[in-house]
Amino acid sequence: MRAEILSCGTELLLGHITDTNATYLAQSLAAQGIDLYNVSQVGDNQGRVVDLLRQAWQRSDLIIMTGGLGPTEDDLTRESIGELLGEKMTLDPELQAQLRARFSHSGPMPERNLKQATLIPSAQSIPNPVGTAPGWWVEKDGHILVAMPGVPREMYRMWEEEVVPRLAKYTGGLIFTRLLRVYGLGESATEELLTPLLRSTNPTIATYAKIDAVDVRITAKAERTEDALQLVAEMEEKARALLGDHVFGIEGDTLASVIGKALQARQQTLGVMESLTGGMLASTITDFHSSSKHFIGGIVTYSTDLKVQMGVPQEIVDRYGVISEETARAMAHAVRERLGTDFGIGVTGVAGPDKQEDKPVGTVHIAIEGPEGTVTGMGPGWRGGRADNKRHAVLTSLNLLRRYLEGTIVPQ
Amino acid sequence: MRAEILSCGTELLLGHITDTNATYLAQSLAAQGIDLYNVSQVGDNQGRVVDLLRQAWQRSDLIIMTGGLGPTEDDLTRESIGELLGEKMTLDPELQAQLRARFSHSGPMPERNLKQATLIPSAQSIPNPVGTAPGWWVEKDGHILVAMPGVPREMYRMWEEEVVPRLAKYTGGLIFTRLLRVYGLGESATEELLTPLLRSTNPTIATYAKIDAVDVRITAKAERTEDALQLVAEMEEKARALLGDHVFGIEGDTLASVIGKALQARQQTLGVMESLTGGMLASTITDFHSSSKHFIGGIVTYSTDLKVQMGVPQEIVDRYGVISEETARAMAHAVRERLGTDFGIGVTGVAGPDKQEDKPVGTVHIAIEGPEGTVTGMGPGWRGGRADNKRHAVLTSLNLLRRYLEGTIVPQ
Repeated sequence: MRAEILSCGTELLLGHITDTNATYLAQSLAAQGIDLYNVSQVGDNQGRVVDLLRQAWQRSDLIIMTGGLGPTEDDLTRESIGELLGEKMTLDPELQAQLRARFSHSGPMPERNLKQATLIPSAQSIPNPVGTAPGWWVEKDGHILVAMPGVPREMYRMWEEEVVPRLAKYTGGLIFTRLLRVYGLGESATEELLTPLLRSTNPTIATYAKIDAVDVRITAKAERTEDALQLVAEMEEKARALLGDHVFGIEGDTLASVIGKALQARQQTLGVMESLTGGMLASTITDFHSSSKHFIGGIVTYSTDLKVQMGVPQEIVDRYGVISEETARAMAHAVRERLGTDFGIGVTGVAGPDKQEDKPVGTVHIAIEGPEGTVTGMGPGWRGGRADNKRHAVLTSLNLLRRYLEGTIVPQ
Repeated sequence: MRAEILSCGTELLLGHITDTNATYLAQSLAAQGIDLYNVSQVGDNQGRVVDLLRQAWQRSDLIIMTGGLGPTEDDLTRESIGELLGEKMTLDPELQAQLRARFSHSGPMPERNLKQATLIPSAQSIPNPVGTAPGWWVEKDGHILVAMPGVPREMYRMWEEEVVPRLAKYTGGLIFTRLLRVYGLGESATEELLTPLLRSTNPTIATYAKIDAVDVRITAKAERTEDALQLVAEMEEKARALLGDHVFGIEGDTLASVIGKALQARQQTLGVMESLTGGMLASTITDFHSSSKHFIGGIVTYSTDLKVQMGVPQEIVDRYGVISEETARAMAHAVRERLGTDFGIGVTGVAGPDKQEDKPVGTVHIAIEGPEGTVTGMGPGWRGGRADNKRHAVLTSLNLLRRYLEGTIVPQ
């Protein structure tokens, strides 16, 4: 099955938005074993859309369109498909009733919205659980054409819940995926560890570098649900064995949510004292929605005087320097004591652009003091820009706390 | 002049990367008044690249390619252009010498890199100041084809420094742009204020919503530098008159850099006490590279007890609640006093997902105490997810401090 993506919207050609829908769909098609050979973006112009559709109809079995399903005159996807296939759009009574029901809360429906309730003979409607525009599923002469809204959250839902299951009979069955989240390994190191599994075609396994982790996606196809689940479970076990405790969670997890849940399960609390990360450590911890249950607070000791005022002994700073393991230990101890928390994290280092105390940009010292003792760590040796150095120091700190809480690192 | 973008790389079709190059080029073309009608992504397959190039050659005057200029067998852009035009690639002695010189620091050059020193008769080389792959500028039969590397930072430099100036004679002259950064107005409100200017064709003016501001880009064309600068300056003056003190800076400025520079010019210092923003306020302030000169530190008082411990009177919290202007004022006062800074910011509110003290998600109270007195403000009334609520509270706080420092808001 040869697929092609056509994204419609003049805002794409003006550079007002980036076509992240195409990236999302490309990943999903690859996971399903469907070959994607062409992606194009086109403006809201029926002549140009139809030109591209004619080419796509010749060279591809599956055409996936996004955008152009809104109610305005600029939204031309339905009209273009009608022109391509020489079929006339007519109002569907059922779709019209559903559309009017959607508007019943918010006043009368503008009449121009009615075109969202139209179909052509070859098209079936695809429900849109989060918006007014239904999609179209078109089958004709051995080709499939899917038209979905351009708004990403509407498109994602429609694709996952409606389109992927319909494609199952063409792709050899139902699809199940599992995402493992990895920290402490780069993408190529992750891929290298997974080498024995990469050639598998069902399930497939692939890595994606994300800003806060490397994601490993396992995708299996089968005719029966239980078989697909079984395939995924077996592959997950193998992948976890190869990746060890670098795997910190699954889809939806972050380092902050994982440590948050672990602390809450232990009914323990956390406080942080940070310098180079400038507040980003506390901010990342509080991105987890229920963080007020375990996070008491943080102190951003950007100046050395403030470190001392907040309980770091002056003699430690004088003797070892601000950028040292000893100062990180003293910060963890001071914040734990001052805030009365079970765990205290201390982080100090050099964010850049200039070196400090003759220590190079990217130097990071982390200490975590808890009921079982203290663990220490260095940053990942990253030498990027200021923002990247801060982010890597934060993630490395959270990962160290995760390993402390999971018992895979032994405090002293 | 009708333009088209063709992005090459199998990683685009696997969803491993998103084509942000196309977005960047689309914005630049729009600013130069060049119409962009087609964008496509294609994999590393010479047959498919040449197919798309033939179509592009028929329908477009200017074809911009990115990617496929590397040294490996997968890099097929030069070969594809040669096939399109029926011209043979030959080694250019000067390019070869430059390439070998680049490698002289890092050991012998792999022979396969030699193809980066080739040209066809219709192609001129475009220098690459930050990488090994030069671009190609091809002119034939009234068409222009530009091939640039896919690595964004290499492509951006080559486009801005080499390609845009060469395009000047086709687009009516030299291009100058100016970016104004706006906070406190949404994109549509900004556009509405600019309505009298939007129809201007030289200079053009356009708005772009960014995560930390709305950007207003003014672009002028002229044959002489001084004329273009004059056109931009006149339009900038009109735009600033319409937007008033919502304009906080120009290209490269952030709210954090603007307040940082203002505080440093006044030789004054800053401390913050924050709750709903969880450290993001301090972190954003310290994103500015020299923030250690004015930022002493921050206290993330996530628990109410910690607020009291850090100097917020218990009776204020009891009487007005944690989510109140009075508590924000007490936080600003406490941190200013405790850290001995010239300015103190206090921010409290409800990040969500649940309401607090019966105040809805998105409620934010901000107070800034400084030498001239105190100013207070509310959040922007944003009701988004937790991350958005935090971000908007941070930016609104920084914008309030900016207006305090600029004197456009009067402390009491």
